[in-house]
Amino acid sequence: MKEFDPALYLVTDQKLSKGRPVEYIVEQAVKGGVSMVQLREKDCSTLDFVSMAIQLKKLLTSYHVPLIINDRLDVALASDADGLHIGQDDMPYVIARKIFGYGKIIGLSVENMEQAKEANKLDVDYIGLSPVFVTGTKPELVNALGLAGVREITSFSKHKAIAIGGISAQNAADVLRAGATGLAVVSAISSADDPMKAANEIRQKVDEFRNTGK
Amino acid sequence: MKEFDPALYLVTDQKLSKGRPVEYIVEQAVKGGVSMVQLREKDCSTLDFVSMAIQLKKLLTSYHVPLIINDRLDVALASDADGLHIGQDDMPYVIARKIFGYGKIIGLSVENMEQAKEANKLDVDYIGLSPVFVTGTKPELVNALGLAGVREITSFSKHKAIAIGGISAQNAADVLRAGATGLAVVSAISSADDPMKAANEIRQKVDEFRNTGK
Repeated sequence: MKEFDPALYLVTDQKLSKGRPVEYIVEQAVKGGVSMVQLREKDCSTLDFVSMAIQLKKLLTSYHVPLIINDRLDVALASDADGLHIGQDDMPYVIARKIFGYGKIIGLSVENMEQAKEANKLDVDYIGLSPVFVTGTKPELVNALGLAGVREITSFSKHKAIAIGGISAQNAADVLRAGATGLAVVSAISSADDPMKAANEIRQKVDEFRNTGK
Repeated sequence: MKEFDPALYLVTDQKLSKGRPVEYIVEQAVKGGVSMVQLREKDCSTLDFVSMAIQLKKLLTSYHVPLIINDRLDVALASDADGLHIGQDDMPYVIARKIFGYGKIIGLSVENMEQAKEANKLDVDYIGLSPVFVTGTKPELVNALGLAGVREITSFSKHKAIAIGGISAQNAADVLRAGATGLAVVSAISSADDPMKAANEIRQKVDEFRNTGK
């Protein structure tokens, strides 16, 4: 599936899932309103990554929710995932697109205006704006964009912009008002006692903004 | 290039190269008689891995020496490498072959008789027998095959078998006599003061064995 709704995008993190399996978090999140899922695994074997991706692809297909793989085009191909998310240190976009094809979603992380300008030259399917706020997930990133940064980049970018980093039900409306097309969430869902409820609370904010503009 | 001569197979390791760039080690090794090169990088970004692979592919093409990528099919595709080497924790062979195609070389690590039996069911292009001897490169592997293990597996296996682990000019002839089709080397070349000379010494042993059977 090439079409996608970036309303609410779950990015997985085993370490933040309080020992619960990724399949559980993902299914609960989808039931709560998550419209896209990114499988992000940094510390496992290729075999485990592929196995997990194949399992999630099966699960998500039944919900008509696209599966995006972080960084690893090999895993995306092996699992027939719907998309690939690449950061600035991952495979160059042009090479990834050539191999993966135009039938697939490719998203690119953008962390500043310079990168947003470069992204405007590419036919990526979305940009990931990160980090909006400073979080515990990626402590090495200290230069948060803030709402002003989101506003500046989204007013310039030609792409759908999915904001990530410290987003919760509390600040969701603010981030959308700043110009984000959708919201990506890690800990607010993965670390929640009730991931379905947590997802639903943020999804409601997105739907409200879409319906009323506030 | 799908045809390959497994006579002497260099497997790169940045950490064992004494600060010298991988391109230097590889070019010297090829001048010394290395007939295949595997780029193995475990601790770098996908971008760096792809960049290095593209650079090596260019270099090796001029020497008509195939480039094999360790584990990462995405990097192999991005660099148009000649082959992929997978271990038992990497992508399942059948999936890798489907994506990479029959025009490419795929090798599989085999560490015991059980895995050799499984490999006999697959149309891999070669198996990598490891480790023949215990080495500092992979200290976690304590169950070395020894010459007896190489003899046992090669007499059973239907595939070309490239032996790896602690191989040097001193034991090269023994390993070939035990049934290995070719020899793979890490530190004996990468850590040598003169990688070209080190490669040449081992290559001479291979040629001698091929010519005289001893």
